[in-house]
Amino acid sequence: MTKKLLVINPNTSAEMTKDIQTTINQIKDFDMDVTVTMPDFGPQSLESFYDYSLAAFGCIRLVQKVGEDYDGILVSCYGDPGLFSLKEICDYPVIGIAEASIALSTIMGQKFSLLVASHKAVPMMEDMVNQYGFQSRLASIEPIGVSVLEIEKDKKASIAKLSAVGAKAIEKGGEVLILGCAGMTGMKEELETELGVPVIDPVEYGYLLLEMMVKNHCPISKIGLYKQPDQKKISKLEILIN
Amino acid sequence: MTKKLLVINPNTSAEMTKDIQTTINQIKDFDMDVTVTMPDFGPQSLESFYDYSLAAFGCIRLVQKVGEDYDGILVSCYGDPGLFSLKEICDYPVIGIAEASIALSTIMGQKFSLLVASHKAVPMMEDMVNQYGFQSRLASIEPIGVSVLEIEKDKKASIAKLSAVGAKAIEKGGEVLILGCAGMTGMKEELETELGVPVIDPVEYGYLLLEMMVKNHCPISKIGLYKQPDQKKISKLEILIN
Amino acid sequence: MTKKLLVINPNTSAEMTKDIQTTINQIKDFDMDVTVTMPDFGPQSLESFYDYSLAAFGCIRLVQKVGEDYDGILVSCYGDPGLFSLKEICDYPVIGIAEASIALSTIMGQKFSLLVASHKAVPMMEDMVNQYGFQSRLASIEPIGVSVLEIEKDKKASIAKLSAVGAKAIEKGGEVLILGCAGMTGMKEELETELGVPVIDPVEYGYLLLEMMVKNHCPISKIGLYKQPDQKKISKLEILIN
Amino acid sequence: MTKKLLVINPNTSAEMTKDIQTTINQIKDFDMDVTVTMPDFGPQSLESFYDYSLAAFGCIRLVQKVGEDYDGILVSCYGDPGLFSLKEICDYPVIGIAEASIALSTIMGQKFSLLVASHKAVPMMEDMVNQYGFQSRLASIEPIGVSVLEIEKDKKASIAKLSAVGAKAIEKGGEVLILGCAGMTGMKEELETELGVPVIDPVEYGYLLLEMMVKNHCPISKIGLYKQPDQKKISKLEILIN
Amino acid sequence: MTKKLLVINPNTSAEMTKDIQTTINQIKDFDMDVTVTMPDFGPQSLESFYDYSLAAFGCIRLVQKVGEDYDGILVSCYGDPGLFSLKEICDYPVIGIAEASIALSTIMGQKFSLLVASHKAVPMMEDMVNQYGFQSRLASIEPIGVSVLEIEKDKKASIAKLSAVGAKAIEKGGEVLILGCAGMTGMKEELETELGVPVIDPVEYGYLLLEMMVKNHCPISKIGLYKQPDQKKISKLEILIN
Amino acid sequence: MTKKLLVINPNTSAEMTKDIQTTINQIKDFDMDVTVTMPDFGPQSLESFYDYSLAAFGCIRLVQKVGEDYDGILVSCYGDPGLFSLKEICDYPVIGIAEASIALSTIMGQKFSLLVASHKAVPMMEDMVNQYGFQSRLASIEPIGVSVLEIEKDKKASIAKLSAVGAKAIEKGGEVLILGCAGMTGMKEELETELGVPVIDPVEYGYLLLEMMVKNHCPISKIGLYKQPDQKKISKLEILIN
Repeated sequence: MTKKLLVINPNTSAEMTKDIQTTINQIKDFDMDVTVTMPDFGPQSLESFYDYSLAAFGCIRLVQKVGEDYDGILVSCYGDPGLFSLKEICDYPVIGIAEASIALSTIMGQKFSLLVASHKAVPMMEDMVNQYGFQSRLASIEPIGVSVLEIEKDKKASIAKLSAVGAKAIEKGGEVLILGCAGMTGMKEELETELGVPVIDPVEYGYLLLEMMVKNHCPISKIGLYKQPDQKKISKLEILIN
Repeated sequence: MTKKLLVINPNTSAEMTKDIQTTINQIKDFDMDVTVTMPDFGPQSLESFYDYSLAAFGCIRLVQKVGEDYDGILVSCYGDPGLFSLKEICDYPVIGIAEASIALSTIMGQKFSLLVASHKAVPMMEDMVNQYGFQSRLASIEPIGVSVLEIEKDKKASIAKLSAVGAKAIEKGGEVLILGCAGMTGMKEELETELGVPVIDPVEYGYLLLEMMVKNHCPISKIGLYKQPDQKKISKLEILIN
Repeated sequence: MTKKLLVINPNTSAEMTKDIQTTINQIKDFDMDVTVTMPDFGPQSLESFYDYSLAAFGCIRLVQKVGEDYDGILVSCYGDPGLFSLKEICDYPVIGIAEASIALSTIMGQKFSLLVASHKAVPMMEDMVNQYGFQSRLASIEPIGVSVLEIEKDKKASIAKLSAVGAKAIEKGGEVLILGCAGMTGMKEELETELGVPVIDPVEYGYLLLEMMVKNHCPISKIGLYKQPDQKKISKLEILIN
Repeated sequence: MTKKLLVINPNTSAEMTKDIQTTINQIKDFDMDVTVTMPDFGPQSLESFYDYSLAAFGCIRLVQKVGEDYDGILVSCYGDPGLFSLKEICDYPVIGIAEASIALSTIMGQKFSLLVASHKAVPMMEDMVNQYGFQSRLASIEPIGVSVLEIEKDKKASIAKLSAVGAKAIEKGGEVLILGCAGMTGMKEELETELGVPVIDPVEYGYLLLEMMVKNHCPISKIGLYKQPDQKKISKLEILIN
Repeated sequence: MTKKLLVINPNTSAEMTKDIQTTINQIKDFDMDVTVTMPDFGPQSLESFYDYSLAAFGCIRLVQKVGEDYDGILVSCYGDPGLFSLKEICDYPVIGIAEASIALSTIMGQKFSLLVASHKAVPMMEDMVNQYGFQSRLASIEPIGVSVLEIEKDKKASIAKLSAVGAKAIEKGGEVLILGCAGMTGMKEELETELGVPVIDPVEYGYLLLEMMVKNHCPISKIGLYKQPDQKKISKLEILIN
Repeated sequence: MTKKLLVINPNTSAEMTKDIQTTINQIKDFDMDVTVTMPDFGPQSLESFYDYSLAAFGCIRLVQKVGEDYDGILVSCYGDPGLFSLKEICDYPVIGIAEASIALSTIMGQKFSLLVASHKAVPMMEDMVNQYGFQSRLASIEPIGVSVLEIEKDKKASIAKLSAVGAKAIEKGGEVLILGCAGMTGMKEELETELGVPVIDPVEYGYLLLEMMVKNHCPISKIGLYKQPDQKKISKLEILIN
């Protein structure tokens, strides 16, 4: 039976949503029914915890409205905003592209490096890697020093910058490079050619992992960190928000 | 000059707001002008990441409305929901009762234990302690196995339960016990008497630390993790939310 | 185009090879051509580093003989014997069921527990988890206290023992349980039903991950830990061994 | 009721004692009775474990003579010499400026850097940070390459050097800079202006934290690391030393 | 040429000094000239940081008086009081029995357990193991619940208690047991027989390691943590102390 | 009674075996009967996990043939190939030069640096240090960028390169430098003279530690990680291999 997957771009940039759609079209299995969407409000790009908080709210509201129709969700922003909340309230797999890409990188090499947009992303990503417990596998976090929206405006310039910081990452021991921003989706191949090292497009790997989990009925554990909140609590709030 | 402090109970329980007010009244310096308040929507108690996400949104909105009038903010829920977002958007000290109580506990003893409400709080708190980097100082997390709202309903029973798990914590090496839920505020003294060990009421210590920081012009660093988001982004959203 | 995968049971137990075959038959994609095999010499079960060393040698020899015909390899023994050597000498993905199951468990819950055969497996697995850098996600390692070959002899008894230690693991914070021995393959479902928590059959997850990687051309990084040894060195030895 | 605080400069430099006094005069609450003093023997500056051992002895002797008259003690040397001994033998709060400044820095930013005097201070401080368990919050330790006593001789030159290494610290991710030597007290403001980042004068923050703890009856835990030694043992030795 | 070694019992118990002498007599190489001694003042047993501070002072004074005549020093108290100071001021090897026994235990098994005297020794030893960076090799710390001086009074009872807690340590994964108190010297053999697991007498292993280092001219590094303090500083203080 | 020690050079380079012999001749005690040998097949140098796997097999076979005649074994390749297997099957001490040199370095300074041959050795050694749990004592790993066999071909050039990277290691905080390749044996003295810092020849320290352990009957723990495999299993395989 065809499975339905929801890919959420948690920001409100239509362009980035389109890019994510393009990436997924290239890799999705023919018998998967995939919807790529975004919340109806929130920042156009997510570059701070403030942005993350708004996006988390938007994602929760979106999932409360349409979530029942799906068999799995991919949160497609590096930083996994609202991920733990969504894992709690859904009874099917919810995956973040950050957690998925880091987990998979550990199979592909001893150490990963994250290539990120702005300088502020460096401590934010380090905070996330510490929270996830992957410190000993992290080689470095390399910012290209531009904002997320600028990345998409001049893709050629962005790839050049990513190539430059990618070379630095390799020197610091990065064996696998991860594009640490959904706005970089689609740039992986040129980088792999130039740098001669695996580059992970986290939208791609996040999606593939979700597809694998949904097809094979892999559950999220509901007895610990992601235990479902009291059902009454959830429905009461749903009304309040709408 | 009198300083104005805002203490936010991030849930919507009027009773818990009142209890926090009581604790602060007992310790506040006479020349501090303190307002204890709560968001106008959100869960009555915060026991999941879902609750945290809603509360974070509520707190941000509250601070965007009234924040300009204050010199410092205390986020008064163990779990520090929305804390990093508020640190970013305010240009004065914003403190969470979890981060403050853990930091201060390191002065008072080698190892701290957290006494928490439900079983689900155990992995949630462990996740937070890992994110903050205090793993090597944590002795244990001890749940009393009741929901946050039940704690306040029967305070006597709650203290008895806290005393029982506190004894377990001491056996596991806890030298300082922290009440890991704002709903436990006001219960510290009986526990200290019974257990013969320092018990931290995080509302109290969080408030005292905020007072000290505001009086002495201690800033939050704005060059790294808590760098201010783009101002235009913030104002645009303010309109959208209201 | 059909891809060819090699699943190696690194011990010489025909029964275990058959069980692995059964598990993979149930999940493999129709257009994958999968061979399940084992080395022509070595211990019947792998329960010590001594066993691992012999198995590693056997696996290398096997891959040197038949490896050229394949697009991916799964090493199907918990402990990943010889895995790093095989990652080095192959130019396509080689995955171990231990590394794969642990990486995937981090998506499914905060903490995993390993259910293992003998008491000796406890320090062996802890050593491996430390080497891989996943200490902070490990809840516990629980031995059932029987040898690997006994597990298969009385499957009903084994499941009962696994259920008992699984309950202990849950109490210690294990949110996802991993069957830490390929000899336990096929026992997952009964345990999930009894314990109400996700149980990972590492043969299954390792295979699914390999399939995903091979289908989508995910490479292993060849610039760091798994850099290919000097080609001359390899061929010289091939002669020597045969 | 007025509380009496003892601030110990553990070395025997009268000049440094005076500087500490100056810093404290600027921040102390009017109703606190503060004495700044130093031991009657020991090194003029503390730059080795040898110096620390002598200073620890001097501080203990000092506290055994005059300690009964006080309600709290601040050990005012970065390195906290003798701190754990004094925590044991006093029944009121004893704080070190190193432990206090590091704990408070965690509220002000994700990562701190220490600016220290000599190159030898680098491994000494790293050893201390490891012992305290704050490794994951440490960005870097930056030596200015001069001895402690030289720092005070030419304050202008010292500030210039601190500014230079402070810039390096910021580049390595330091969000909060800590002056890692009591001899640098009073130099914070110029550095903050130049570098645009919070700089902690540990004498100031250590004192403020002590004041807060004493005013609010915050105890040190006496059941674990700082358990009081056998009383008979202490008095016997007192005689022996004098 | 005969080498001269100094073994310092840092407390002032003549009985313990004699026991240490006995242990060393049984193992020392015939061509080593070994003196076992103790400071002329200080506590009879070292069970707190206060005791350590006094002992450190006593040991420094002792070494300043007689140190020039020796080629190596063993500090023979578990806790290594004053060790770093002595490493700094001597130009030959100085070893502590704690650091030596832990380092050697890593060759003998994956995990060590410490058997200690009082409950207070538990956090003290944990603090030391953290400072030394051996946390991941520590299985447990097991107190027998008696004071150091009592250990020697009734050796038979002490061995029985050590045997009981040793069994607990083994259950927690301790593969090598270390007698975490110099007062337990000479009790190793009975324990090994009873428990069937290697038991380290740290006086013995510390001495053997010192002998090996002195015979083979192994130096202590003087460029980092143990860099020699300014010579003038040392001589000035020598006068002051005497 | 004279003890018999076996030193295994796990590769098949006769030249390296000779160099190891030379080093040991200079330090061995007159009443030790030492045999330096190598397996009868395998790579001439060990620079990958593939090499390690072959060497491990060769070492096991060697020990199964001649091991009964000895009282202790030193595995003399940095990387400790096959070490855990040999620890399991022998009932006397088996030591690796990597584990021994790192353990001893912790006595000689706070931080060690490894000087290694090729760039690939960097992640391999880091993996080993993580597995052993010594991360917090590691300052850096410095490759000279040549293959193992080249090291011996031009010793003068190798020493010059080691001196250059040694200086870098010192700048990064390395207090003790370890020659991270048995092919560098005999080069320590020139480096110590040039760099003014202790340099460990791991063949030397590994041998000295083994001698000390064998003379003093120090056992390897057989209850945990190194528990002896089932005897029947071992003998069956012995036949199979020969």
